Amino acid sequence: MKNKAITPRDQDFARWYDDVVKAARLATYSGVKGCVIIEPNGYAIWENMQKVLDGMFKETGHQNVNMPVFIPESLLNKEAEHVEGFAPEVAWVTMGGKKELEERMCVRPTSETLFSEYYANTVNSHRDLPKLYNQWVNVVRWEKETRPFLRSREFLWQEGHTIHETAKEAEEETMRMLKIYQKFFTDYLAIPAIVGQKTEKEKFAGAEYTYTIEALMYNGVSLQSGTSHYFGQKFSKPFDITFSNRNNELEHVYQTSWGVSTRMIGGLIMVHSDDNGLVLPPKIAPRQVVIVPIKNESNVISKADEILDALQDRGITAFVDMSEKSPGFKFAEHETNGIPVRIEIGPRDLEENSLVVARRDTREKMTIAADSGVADYVEDLLQEIQDNLLKMATERRDALTYTATTLEEMEKIMNTQPGFVKAMWCGDEECELKIKEIRGTKSRCIPFPEEQEHISDTCVCCGKPAKTEVIWGIQY
Amino acid sequence: MKNKAITPRDQDFARWYDDVVKAARLATYSGVKGCVIIEPNGYAIWENMQKVLDGMFKETGHQNVNMPVFIPESLLNKEAEHVEGFAPEVAWVTMGGKKELEERMCVRPTSETLFSEYYANTVNSHRDLPKLYNQWVNVVRWEKETRPFLRSREFLWQEGHTIHETAKEAEEETMRMLKIYQKFFTDYLAIPAIVGQKTEKEKFAGAEYTYTIEALMYNGVSLQSGTSHYFGQKFSKPFDITFSNRNNELEHVYQTSWGVSTRMIGGLIMVHSDDNGLVLPPKIAPRQVVIVPIKNESNVISKADEILDALQDRGITAFVDMSEKSPGFKFAEHETNGIPVRIEIGPRDLEENSLVVARRDTREKMTIAADSGVADYVEDLLQEIQDNLLKMATERRDALTYTATTLEEMEKIMNTQPGFVKAMWCGDEECELKIKEIRGTKSRCIPFPEEQEHISDTCVCCGKPAKTEVIWGIQY
Repeated sequence: MKNKAITPRDQDFARWYDDVVKAARLATYSGVKGCVIIEPNGYAIWENMQKVLDGMFKETGHQNVNMPVFIPESLLNKEAEHVEGFAPEVAWVTMGGKKELEERMCVRPTSETLFSEYYANTVNSHRDLPKLYNQWVNVVRWEKETRPFLRSREFLWQEGHTIHETAKEAEEETMRMLKIYQKFFTDYLAIPAIVGQKTEKEKFAGAEYTYTIEALMYNGVSLQSGTSHYFGQKFSKPFDITFSNRNNELEHVYQTSWGVSTRMIGGLIMVHSDDNGLVLPPKIAPRQVVIVPIKNESNVISKADEILDALQDRGITAFVDMSEKSPGFKFAEHETNGIPVRIEIGPRDLEENSLVVARRDTREKMTIAADSGVADYVEDLLQEIQDNLLKMATERRDALTYTATTLEEMEKIMNTQPGFVKAMWCGDEECELKIKEIRGTKSRCIPFPEEQEHISDTCVCCGKPAKTEVIWGIQY
Repeated sequence: MKNKAITPRDQDFARWYDDVVKAARLATYSGVKGCVIIEPNGYAIWENMQKVLDGMFKETGHQNVNMPVFIPESLLNKEAEHVEGFAPEVAWVTMGGKKELEERMCVRPTSETLFSEYYANTVNSHRDLPKLYNQWVNVVRWEKETRPFLRSREFLWQEGHTIHETAKEAEEETMRMLKIYQKFFTDYLAIPAIVGQKTEKEKFAGAEYTYTIEALMYNGVSLQSGTSHYFGQKFSKPFDITFSNRNNELEHVYQTSWGVSTRMIGGLIMVHSDDNGLVLPPKIAPRQVVIVPIKNESNVISKADEILDALQDRGITAFVDMSEKSPGFKFAEHETNGIPVRIEIGPRDLEENSLVVARRDTREKMTIAADSGVADYVEDLLQEIQDNLLKMATERRDALTYTATTLEEMEKIMNTQPGFVKAMWCGDEECELKIKEIRGTKSRCIPFPEEQEHISDTCVCCGKPAKTEVIWGIQY
């Protein structure tokens, strides 16, 4: 059975994506241009992401705070590269009530400036360090083209902002948070994302360097999914965030910031979902199991309740769908919504002491004994689905990871079936710009040294001696 | 020992409040006029409030969503009373990037208009109802005078917005959410808040009627702490939110909204705290128990860890303070921060197999046996503190609840020791305005019929026949 509301993925990926977002009721356009409404099914995924990540942040000593949503223009202007990067894409508040403001303020596109001002006012001594703060907030960037979850004028995210006594500590923090993101992607989202460093051209406006986590979508397009920035003293100097160090000298702090956003929901969709709708890894699915009684009969209902209890006892989020729709309608709806496991219980099954279990990832149906072993079976199955989604995504990523030694090779790949292309680079921005002419291909990241391969001696673009390997891709 | 950073509460309540906010590091002013930064100690309280309330909302069938932060002017203008109430106090975005917007947008002061537009676009049939949505977001109101948590240009809150098939269902929802707020205040915040209906003059801009939860602060001033509005069809008509009802006729939905905010943190402070800083009810305290080793000796540390494990096993949030500060400094700091229970363990105590337990509410110190009974003792003590805070707050509220039959009586009360004043009212707005001349005294609420007392036959102000009892107070 085919979901008629969803364009086949291999026919038109962009329409397929929009159809899945709509059919699974994750988000919808609002009357506010470029902004979306995140609906219950979408927001519940975000809540689960928040819960897991927030736990990881707190385990590593981070605390949550809340900074103002506005940034006065003079504050935004304090760090030159930063303002250059962000000023063209902010929304400006110019009036409060009926009065023109003396100084206009932007709605935060990111909060380095606010955190820097706060830290400058509150930190005095090395005993005050480190400060490991994070906030879960909305931010606004005045984008021209928008797509639900991938790029919208307002989005939700977390932004960590930390300050440290030494460069080494701050650099360790930058790496620690990248690794946390990678762990979250692998273990929860079942997305085998790659990590590395951004080139100078692609780094964050105001950073010394930027680490990035990049995921490959089903169609071979890359999604920048999170970043972790090392600022060194690039903000602490203009904002004058000083502390008296252990030698009793005044020194500027070393700073980081890192963030992931609701964009991850877009990544989840484009990595795992299919022509029948959303597919969710069990560890991030708001509801892991749905039990559908085929008939509204008392022995069926009581069996459903018994299984519900057994599943909930193990911490599995399950529910019984008692709505008045037909079983077939329910099956399709829960499939569209990406519920990982569906249990069907009918009177005839019960006579044979059996029930049917359907898994969303492969859409297989299994008949199993309706005895005390159901919870065991489902628990194992959820883990198997989680593992299988990661395995399939890894296989696809690997199949779409290429090497290229010439521009022609790269061009051919990107025009046939794009993906991650590993190629050597001379370090020159001109070559990046030239490569960009191939369907907008950009450097995704410079892999960390231990993961670099020696693909060739020369730059894929200009043929001059290569400095490093770079992974290239077409991006969202 | 007196905390020198805190002005005595009975000497200058306003300064005392600001001092507690600062000393307990709950919030601080930002460079953005009228906006505060919520610091880790303050935000952790908000996180606990969110967790408990969100659980209560979900148990009663509500789902979370996220609406845009902006409202186009034309959308805000759709309901006449609503725009009149809010337009004077909104922040206007007029530019996106370098371009002037074709239509200016306000930063949401509340989201009735956005929800109404969404519901109009998505609801068709009685089978789509009810919709029970909520969101946890920031809102902006361009206030002139601001105070941390009590009134600031940006604050955090939740706003529930529901639509129903019948007026009866919507009215039941309005009451259900008021009762949930009241339960939360009583059981978690240990605040004996009163509930009732706002007068016409004080109701929400656009509501048929507004229920309110009002708390009495230590100084006898009232704090409007949450509201639940019944809209009837006042939004569904201008926004044209229709559904086909069970008779297959097109009908406008019946609507509610309800919200509480970070203002509750201000209420917590002003009800329970004292001259030594913050006092927190254990059920809302981010950290319930601190264990302070008096000496850094191995048997002391291992005892501290043993007790920590025993407390954590019971779900008590405890931590050992191993920082390098002196014990006396630690005691004062944890007291200022309002940690409900402190356990002190010294080598001499251990020789005698005893330890000291200090409770924050009464500041009593108890010496108890350092054996396996410690966790039992602490668990009981936390409950006792929770109960005692509610008891003390209730006694104070009752002591500051008066009746008045004449304006002179009311004036005398408000000029001596203000509080809640129960008095009869004719229903005329002119009398409300006249009473307001007494230090800004306003009607807090009309108690529900079953809670009304027959104080007199005549209006406290004009002497004409009274229609109802009203509880009056000076407000924040």
